[in-house]
This record gives sequence, C-alpha cells and structure tokens, in this order.
Amino acid sequence: MKRILIQLDTDALPSVFDRVVAIDAGVDELFSYGGVTPENVTGLVHGAIFTRGPADLKNTALFIGGSNVAAGEALLKAVKKAFFGPMRVSVLMDSNGSNTTAAAAVFAATKHIKLAESTALVLGGTGPVGHRAAQILASQGTQVRVASREKSKAETVCQKIRDVVKDARVTPVSSSDTPAKLLEGCDLLIAAGAAGVQFFKAEEWQQASSLKVAIDLNAVPPEGLAGIGVTDKAVAKGPITTYGAIGVGGLKMKIHRAAIQNLFEANDRLLDTAAVYDLAAKV
Amino acid sequence: MKRILIQLDTDALPSVFDRVVAIDAGVDELFSYGGVTPENVTGLVHGAIFTRGPADLKNTALFIGGSNVAAGEALLKAVKKAFFGPMRVSVLMDSNGSNTTAAAAVFAATKHIKLAESTALVLGGTGPVGHRAAQILASQGTQVRVASREKSKAETVCQKIRDVVKDARVTPVSSSDTPAKLLEGCDLLIAAGAAGVQFFKAEEWQQASSLKVAIDLNAVPPEGLAGIGVTDKAVAKGPITTYGAIGVGGLKMKIHRAAIQNLFEANDRLLDTAAVYDLAAKV
Amino acid sequence: MKRILIQLDTDALPSVFDRVVAIDAGVDELFSYGGVTPENVTGLVHGAIFTRGPADLKNTALFIGGSNVAAGEALLKAVKKAFFGPMRVSVLMDSNGSNTTAAAAVFAATKHIKLAESTALVLGGTGPVGHRAAQILASQGTQVRVASREKSKAETVCQKIRDVVKDARVTPVSSSDTPAKLLEGCDLLIAAGAAGVQFFKAEEWQQASSLKVAIDLNAVPPEGLAGIGVTDKAVAKGPITTYGAIGVGGLKMKIHRAAIQNLFEANDRLLDTAAVYDLAAKV
Repeated sequence: MKRILIQLDTDALPSVFDRVVAIDAGVDELFSYGGVTPENVTGLVHGAIFTRGPADLKNTALFIGGSNVAAGEALLKAVKKAFFGPMRVSVLMDSNGSNTTAAAAVFAATKHIKLAESTALVLGGTGPVGHRAAQILASQGTQVRVASREKSKAETVCQKIRDVVKDARVTPVSSSDTPAKLLEGCDLLIAAGAAGVQFFKAEEWQQASSLKVAIDLNAVPPEGLAGIGVTDKAVAKGPITTYGAIGVGGLKMKIHRAAIQNLFEANDRLLDTAAVYDLAAKV
Repeated sequence: MKRILIQLDTDALPSVFDRVVAIDAGVDELFSYGGVTPENVTGLVHGAIFTRGPADLKNTALFIGGSNVAAGEALLKAVKKAFFGPMRVSVLMDSNGSNTTAAAAVFAATKHIKLAESTALVLGGTGPVGHRAAQILASQGTQVRVASREKSKAETVCQKIRDVVKDARVTPVSSSDTPAKLLEGCDLLIAAGAAGVQFFKAEEWQQASSLKVAIDLNAVPPEGLAGIGVTDKAVAKGPITTYGAIGVGGLKMKIHRAAIQNLFEANDRLLDTAAVYDLAAKV
Repeated sequence: MKRILIQLDTDALPSVFDRVVAIDAGVDELFSYGGVTPENVTGLVHGAIFTRGPADLKNTALFIGGSNVAAGEALLKAVKKAFFGPMRVSVLMDSNGSNTTAAAAVFAATKHIKLAESTALVLGGTGPVGHRAAQILASQGTQVRVASREKSKAETVCQKIRDVVKDARVTPVSSSDTPAKLLEGCDLLIAAGAAGVQFFKAEEWQQASSLKVAIDLNAVPPEGLAGIGVTDKAVAKGPITTYGAIGVGGLKMKIHRAAIQNLFEANDRLLDTAAVYDLAAKV
C-alpha cells in the first residue's frame, strides 16, 4: 500500500521546499493543497481517515506547513477536531520550518554543552522558532532566559512553556537590558529574531566570559549576531563555538525527513515541538 | 506507458477521498484540479486527448467529482462536448459518490431479494443518490415508488428515469403519505435523504409486513430510518435485513476502485449510473 | 534520487498537455502550480534550489508554461533573478508551446531545403511562434523576411533577433504587400498567425515559382494558408512540400520530451529558443 502524505499549506501556493523534502523522505504520493484554513480542512481530513481500513491508516499522514506559524497552529487545532476517536492519521506540524529549525539548533548545542547543566539566552524568544527552542531547552533541564523587547510578552511565553514542560526553569527578560547583563552566566546563546534585526555587535557576545556556544538562526543580512556567517558550522570564535542558519540547515533537513518517515510508523503520531526534538537524537 | 487519471473536481479543493481511492485503485499518476467549471474545462480535456496517440489514449482517463452533483453533471456535459470524434478518453462521473453509493445500496439488496420480482420505496428519491438508486432498480425490473415531499418533483424524476430505462416501472409518491401506505407491499426500502432528515420512526418501518430489506444511506445523526446503525451490515431487525451508510461503504469502495480500473481498458468508456452498476456485479 | 519537475504555469489551471508530456518524458515527480506570477514565484524557486545539495541539484528542474507567452517571458526573468550564483536549476520555457512549435516547423523544413542557402517569409512574424521561427532561421543563416501588418512592429522584432543572433539577415516586410512580392525568391513560407487569420488563398502561394516548402501552423479553421490540411505532413502540392499544424505536431512532441529530459543532465541549462532548436537535431 502506498504511503500518502497530504500537505496542508496555509499559503496560496503549497511550499516547494516541503514537497521536495517529502519526496526525498520516501513518500510515495504527495497530495499538495494551498490556501487551507480551519474552515475548509474538515473534508480533507475526513477524506484521509475514511478511505483506508484501521489497519492501513498508518499509510496516510498529514503535514501542516506554510509561512505563517500562527495560521498553522490554528489549522492543527482544526485537524485534531476533525478526527473521530481511533479514526485518525499521524500529523507533522512544521509551519515555516519552526519545529525542525528549533530542534536542529538545540541539538547542535548538545555537541558542545550539557543542556541540563547549562543556562541559555534565547533572543527573539517570543517568535515561533525562539519560543520552540526555549521550550525544547526547558524540557532538557536547561535554565532558560526568554528575551523579548516587551518583558510581558516574554512572561506569556514562559507561562506557555510551564504549561507543557513540567518543572520548566524559564525566566522572562527584556532584550533592552545590556548584553553583559543578559549573557551573565550563560553557556548558550540562540538568536531567533525576525529578518533585519541585529541583536548584538560582535564584541558584545564575544566578551561574555561564560559563553560556549552561539547560534544565529537569521539567514538574511544583517546577521542577528554580528560576526557569525550564515554557513558557519561549529566555527570557533575564540572559546565560543558558532553556527549560522545554513550551518544548522543540514541537520534541520535530516530531522525534517526523519519526522516524515516517522509519521508512517503508526496512525496516531502527533509530531509537534517535543516529538520532533526526540527524533533529532535518532538521526 | 503510465496510467494517468485527471481528477476534475467542482469544489475549490479537490477531494482527498477520491484521490486516495484513485491511488489505491492503481493509478500511476493523478492530476488533481479544483474549481473546474464547464467554462474552464475544455483546455484540460484537449490536453488529455491531444498528447498521446490513438492506440495509447486508453492510458489517460477523467474522473468528475465534487460535492455538488448538479455541477458535476454540467461538467460531464462540457467534457463530452470537448471530445473530437474518436479523440476521447474514458470518463467516470461520481460527484459526491452518488453513482457508487447508489450502486452499492442496490447491489447489497440483491443478496436478499430478487429485484425483478420486488417493489421498492426510495425516500429522498429526487436527491442525487435516491434518483440514481431508483433508476438502477428500475433498470433491473423492480417496481419503484419514488418519494418526495412534492409529488410533482417525484414525477419529474420518474420521467427522467423513463427516458433512459426502457419499460421502467416507476411511480411518484408523496412522502407525506402515511408510512403504512408508502410501504404497503414493499420488499425494499432505501432512505437517501439529506443529512438531518428522519423519515420514519423505528416502529413505522419495522411494522411493514412485506418488508425484507431496509437501507439507510444517511451517515450523520439522526438516522434517516430510526433504529438502523450507521455501521449495520446485513443486521436482522426481526424479519428485516438492514444496512447503514458505512455498512454499504465497503462495497461502495470496491465499486469505486473497480470503476477506476475499468476506465483504462478502453478510451471510450462513459461510466455513469448504469455502467457503474454493471461493474458492481463483477467486484 | 527522484527527478522532480516543477511546472510553473501562468494560467489558473496548470496545463494538462504539459503535464502528460512531462510524465511521458520520464519525470518521476511533477509539482504543478497554476496562477504563477513574477510576484509569487521567488519562494517556489528558493524551495527548488535550497533543498538538495549542489551535486544533486540537476535532479530538480523548472518548466515555464501557460497560454500567455509574454507572461511566461516575465516569469522566466523573475525565475532567473531568484537564482543565487551556482544555486540554480535548469529551466525550460515553452509557454503555449512556442519554442517547441517554432523548432519543429523549422526542423521540418531542413528535410527539404538547406537553410543557409534559402530565403524565408514568416507571416505572423511578430507573434510568439513567428518571432521564434524567424530567430531560429536567422541563426541557421537563412535570409528571413519578417512580416507583420505594421512594418514598424516587424522592424522591432528584426532588431530583437539581431540582438541575439550574430550576423542575422532579417528584413521587415508589410503583410499588406502583394503575395507575389512577399514571396519573390522565397524557398520557405511559414504562416504563424493568430487563429482566424487567413493570409493567402491557395493560388497565391502555389503560384510562387521559387517556393519549395510551405508550413501552416494554424490548427483552427480557416487555414492560414488555404489548401494546407491541418494533418498534412510532407504532402506535395505540385512542386511545393506542405505541412499543417498537426503534421509538425509529432516532431514538436519529440522535441518537447527531449527538452525535458535534457533539463536533468545538469543544473544550469536554460532551454529557450536557440537551445530548444539545437535539441531538434538530436531527436
């Protein structure tokens, strides 16, 4: 029986990127939809769950994508609502690559530090990738500082993380504090801001005495952390190991493909942030 | 040469249900189009008939689907008009599953009664599935009562059936008549109403002394015939054998797949109501 | 690794014709997009170039199609702009079949005359197919008369041809001149006008004493050149060998398939007019 992946994209034209990765992950048939909304998705989900018998349902799966992560989250909610008890199929949610990118960034750090014994600063911590990176770190026992221009927004994200991660050690901070104060005692720095935002000058993060790893997820100039090249991959800047967006891209792709393959092992997988990170350890 | 099925769906997003069935029927390549209308279909049909030589044309076929059966019928008319003499490909019309569902319901009944010696009542007989079920029954020699709230609409459907079925024995009846009168002398009862319509209470159809088979095609609560479960499949209620919508669903899927496979045996098949029922006997 | 062709169609519904040809050319996966514009294409191109490593990029390619050739040319420009240095994939541009049709028409002529020693008249020479046929002829050393109702438009096309073909021998002429004058000394006549335009009556072109080959690319009645049947293929009308639109269609299809196969030999092919004609000699 052929493995069918149904791509539900919230953008008008379904992502070529996600389609190529799905094919390279070994999907047999890819049904691609653009312009998918919570309003029009129910019939598509019913078509997925009512066409094959219970024993064969693991050969059909859903992928939720698109550039707008909030729209993808709303779609995931509607998809879950359209399932009927055991009549369900596995789902991967990765709008804008948010889960696979966050998982890849955190996993890259594990090659250099022990997460459970570390402190991390996540800049752009209220954006989709930053929020997810902070959540994954918290789930691994890291002490996490979630930074945002508005500390109240950072506190909201911290609360959301505490809701899903037991004993999360997360603290909201304001990104308008001085770099020295923000980075004090930090082992890991992840910059996950919007394109065009430069958080720190080179000397600001390179002078942090405790820092061991710095990861800049911004792929478009200017750098989020000045001095880190987009293709840097475990490049040493003095005592600090650095990664750029493309530097973690290879790992992101492996996680993305592994997640798609994992969908077809059962009909009830829900691959959101935590499950995607769990897969990172296996690739 | 690869077998290509071109799915022409009148809904904005082409049906996942129909796509999965097409793949499971063994189609090699599926070209899925949503938002297809009589106005924009001609170029698509020309692309189907002008790309492969006459001897190879049987490897390309069309499927007409979507939730709106009237729109599908209009599309079928436009598709036929776009053919050029022998330059044509086979077509299956099954908007909203209307033909395969009607065929499955009637075929299920044949396991329990002889159609040519039976009398049937079709509730919701002017809807797409009811109309088709009545037509198939008439083609098998059954005496059919086509019921509708407005008897004049039932008469219109009876006339349409007489136009395509020679010697059809069809009679319009008003569904506001008493159940006892409607069911008098009936062997078979098929309920094919719209979602939300309950035609008869349990005692109303179970008290009909001549009744042998009752089929409720409504998949959404409340039942069209109270007391028949949606998954019932040849379940006895006293002397009456009953089927629910999912109970005939397995057979419907087999007919659907067989119809798609049949398309690729020649380039001039037109699988509408009668031809789809003919296939039911072979699955 | 699977060969993926990404069809970028400027029409709302991506061409069935181009999809069937792509499958018959051996493409493994076809991603079809309709309604593609210079504004929304960049993300699609980035998805094509950022998903596979440099050594594997030749397994992904782009096809630009649609009924509007000017829209296809604008799209090609935007696609080329979206490439990043060596991060690129091969592209075939064939909106409305313009390049493959022009190549097939000219190549058909080579079976009967030597292009470098010939004079050709191209009617409808400012339309997409006529312009391309004139350009190909000029590139092969033919003396070409580019005809248009407005001679100034013909001159514009001649100048464009001179810009891309070194030493092009192209002359603008007005199609309102007499047939005798237009055809004086011509070996080859190609009619590439819009549907509904009849350029010459049968006696007008058949009386041209130097004429050896006449090709009418109009597929819809009335003929562009009266007396040439749409399926004529190397049919002699006195001393003149004639071809109709379907008569060159088989060759057009071979060139189209060869062009698609050629895309996957490297990641930097740009198959526009000249490259498509070069392939014609090899099929």
